[in-house]
Amino acid sequence: MRYELYYWPSIQGRGEFVRLALEDAGADYVDVARQSKHGMAGMMRLMESRSVGRPPFATPFLKAGKQVIAQTANILLFLGPRLGLVRKDEATRLWAHQLQLTIADWVAEVHDSHHPISGGLYYEDQKRGAKRRAAEFRDERLPKFLDYFGQVLKRNESDYLVGKTASYVDLSMFQMIEGLRYAFPRAMAKLESKYSRLVGLHDRVAARRRLATYLASDRRLPFNQQGIFRHYPELDS
Amino acid sequence: MRYELYYWPSIQGRGEFVRLALEDAGADYVDVARQSKHGMAGMMRLMESRSVGRPPFATPFLKAGKQVIAQTANILLFLGPRLGLVRKDEATRLWAHQLQLTIADWVAEVHDSHHPISGGLYYEDQKRGAKRRAAEFRDERLPKFLDYFGQVLKRNESDYLVGKTASYVDLSMFQMIEGLRYAFPRAMAKLESKYSRLVGLHDRVAARRRLATYLASDRRLPFNQQGIFRHYPELDS
Repeated sequence: MRYELYYWPSIQGRGEFVRLALEDAGADYVDVARQSKHGMAGMMRLMESRSVGRPPFATPFLKAGKQVIAQTANILLFLGPRLGLVRKDEATRLWAHQLQLTIADWVAEVHDSHHPISGGLYYEDQKRGAKRRAAEFRDERLPKFLDYFGQVLKRNESDYLVGKTASYVDLSMFQMIEGLRYAFPRAMAKLESKYSRLVGLHDRVAARRRLATYLASDRRLPFNQQGIFRHYPELDS
Repeated sequence: MRYELYYWPSIQGRGEFVRLALEDAGADYVDVARQSKHGMAGMMRLMESRSVGRPPFATPFLKAGKQVIAQTANILLFLGPRLGLVRKDEATRLWAHQLQLTIADWVAEVHDSHHPISGGLYYEDQKRGAKRRAAEFRDERLPKFLDYFGQVLKRNESDYLVGKTASYVDLSMFQMIEGLRYAFPRAMAKLESKYSRLVGLHDRVAARRRLATYLASDRRLPFNQQGIFRHYPELDS
């Protein structure tokens, strides 16, 4: 099965959580909007077409044969067992998905730390609110999420968050730490020593053979100021 | 199976999306924190206990035998086929879940319309940001979500959002319209005539026998100023 991933071609964004799973598994996939200008036009056409029976509300979405699947965590729920990135029993799949949904909430809070008023306005037009929200994020929410995932990892008594082998949730946790280091380098430098288990997980994921190849390739887009994780020094501690 | 629902006892909040499914299906369940003061203490104990191998990050969560499942949409993913509120084939379950996750995003935006800076601060301490965010929500986001779900309903060519019979997604859409009418009565009064299909769906759901009984009972909490949907006249149009 050749998967088609549809996502904005110039940012990591939410699509990156799907890319990491596809890359780590060595899956056969096309990153449609990055292939050519036609790819981007095709993505927009598919989103706006009235002939799609089950349309996505937003990107990313995945085409698998005739099936169109949207919502990042839902895509990973679908792909996980197919890519060997989660055990197949229902209880484990639901637990991995629950963690992924908690990561999705975390991602939304990272986004809103620089866009607390509206995704439709420039950062500069909501800078005041962003300073307050980012402070709240750094001081309250960031440690709360790190505590939680640190506890999950500890209680699982393995090198990974779910079960005894790596799952797509571990890949997403790697991405969170990468992104947070980019966006909040000073806050993270202060916090990381408290979360050595999660940092260890990050390092194990980064060293995975196919993932390391991907991360060193030009398929891995750099972080930038258009994505979810953005570095505004005034929003860091 | 007697299900145990764990959620704050004084608000509809995110727990209500689960309550509606349990009530509509006539499921055997206990709303633990509403049973007694011990229920609330039990909920907090369960959340903080280090002996829970797969702990929830936040409420609501459901206990089904020994399984503890959190994240509203994930709980409905689990319950849907068991309660006869979604077809059992994978493609349909994923599609219903995708819609439910889009509703979850919408719910988060409703919450942030009155708490754009932090859930840990009073509304009064973020009123300025709330006015801007609520205006953006009413003018841009609310019509965008209504357009989307109106389109989904239209393309499905049935009385319901998914397949030919009612699913948990329809119950959640009922709840969205109820909540939005409470929070933004003026904005909704202006918009509703454009979305007669969704309003029709709302009315069909409200008339379902077991759901109508529930809605008229004291098990249905009234909306109030502590929940997700809050009515601040200055945030309405």
